[in-house]
Amino acid sequence: MKIGIIGLGLIGGSLGLGLRSLGHTVLGVSRQAQTCQRAIARGAVDDASVSLALMQTVDAIFLCTPLAAMEATVVELVPYLATDTVLTDVGSVKGWVVETIAPLWSNFVGGHPMAGTAESGIEAAQQDLFINAAYVLTPTDATPARAIQLIEDLVRPLQTRLYHCTPNDHDRAVAWISHLPVMTSASLIAACIGEADPAVLGLAYALASSGFRDTSRVGGGNPELGVMMARYNQAALTRSLHAYRNHLNQIITQIEQADWQSLETSLIETQQARSEFLEG
Amino acid sequence: MKIGIIGLGLIGGSLGLGLRSLGHTVLGVSRQAQTCQRAIARGAVDDASVSLALMQTVDAIFLCTPLAAMEATVVELVPYLATDTVLTDVGSVKGWVVETIAPLWSNFVGGHPMAGTAESGIEAAQQDLFINAAYVLTPTDATPARAIQLIEDLVRPLQTRLYHCTPNDHDRAVAWISHLPVMTSASLIAACIGEADPAVLGLAYALASSGFRDTSRVGGGNPELGVMMARYNQAALTRSLHAYRNHLNQIITQIEQADWQSLETSLIETQQARSEFLEG
Repeated sequence: MKIGIIGLGLIGGSLGLGLRSLGHTVLGVSRQAQTCQRAIARGAVDDASVSLALMQTVDAIFLCTPLAAMEATVVELVPYLATDTVLTDVGSVKGWVVETIAPLWSNFVGGHPMAGTAESGIEAAQQDLFINAAYVLTPTDATPARAIQLIEDLVRPLQTRLYHCTPNDHDRAVAWISHLPVMTSASLIAACIGEADPAVLGLAYALASSGFRDTSRVGGGNPELGVMMARYNQAALTRSLHAYRNHLNQIITQIEQADWQSLETSLIETQQARSEFLEG
Repeated sequence: MKIGIIGLGLIGGSLGLGLRSLGHTVLGVSRQAQTCQRAIARGAVDDASVSLALMQTVDAIFLCTPLAAMEATVVELVPYLATDTVLTDVGSVKGWVVETIAPLWSNFVGGHPMAGTAESGIEAAQQDLFINAAYVLTPTDATPARAIQLIEDLVRPLQTRLYHCTPNDHDRAVAWISHLPVMTSASLIAACIGEADPAVLGLAYALASSGFRDTSRVGGGNPELGVMMARYNQAALTRSLHAYRNHLNQIITQIEQADWQSLETSLIETQQARSEFLEG
């Protein structure tokens, strides 16, 4: 099949490598001519261009730009597309994307491959990035069955674990397991560095080890991504943050009131729940 | 030197292996005869007993019991000790330990080797557990200089990074980097599993990956340890929890008010701070 990829970063580049390894022809578009050259050199695309006109002949397109660029990109893209071209995206939020893009192109299926690395950009792209990764599709009642089938047929051979759900359920689920942890982790870092006593702060720096390292990791990640999660998943994230604050308040009360029995009950529950969560 | 170890778990057993590898003679005490046998079989001690009478001839003792057992153990131990025997402990809280144990034995130095593994018990003991690990000593004005020197001379050759501070500064520092993360991480797990919609919860289980795994790790740890941290470091932990809640509230307000500029500023600060923290 002839596949277009718009946005040649980590995800777009990795999709290109993976899809080409399966025998597809891949055409890429990036706003940067240099990125186009690097994508060709790395074998992520057969050809690349800074112009969306390259998308005229493809059967399916993966929209891999940042969320903030998607709407304008699709408005500009639509005049070039054949009527039956199927469009999908890889954005980490689905409600806003589906509401915004589906009205612009009816052959659209929202998608979210849940894979990544600490690095970004075309140089970080990996052919095996999606092996065993969850890949969520969020069709609506209005999504053409053929469009869903076509995207499934493209991403399943990448050895992804395919899931279907509503855009809203997707956004609530990722709020819990991806967006909320960023905010709780960032709050942890902010609280620690707010320590006013330099002797204590210096000691905290010296003694921080794996527990702090793990718990603070996602809160020390890319600030633009963090803002993007909050901006485009505001409702679900706010909902999760409020529930989180309730549980935090409960633990604070248990500790302040020296209610060790209740605290132990809570911690036994979370120990049990985490192992189920990560086996689930 | 002839060294006693009371409590032959992960830390006690690892100290025994490390100190014996440096040529010391190590005598161990455990309440369980079976643990004594395993400690001998693993080479963690030269000899072991269920009786504290074994400690009559040693020059220095590492008290490696759980915090809750320390006071009763030292009360029982004191009649057996030669006057110049130096006692130290390995508890993860220092204010309460020093206040409780120093009045019982003047040759006492509080200590905290900051090393561990996911496993516990004598079978998990490792000779190299303390290599490059922080080892905090918390002498007070009343601690004999000879006692401090003797413990330093024992633990420095284990290739630890030695720090000195007050018991209170230690407890405030570990509240930030060790005890607070357990409570924020436990709150995260509790909030997630509180999701009332089974479709969303099932999806969260399916999609949870490295970000959730890391952020939830310490909150899914040993419940008894979590309660112990809270119980014996209540004041410092409460102080850290309040500061944390203030930062969390700030982030919640930024998101609710769609103040993306302030949120980005916060996340840029935490990204920068984390890399300094873990380089520090």
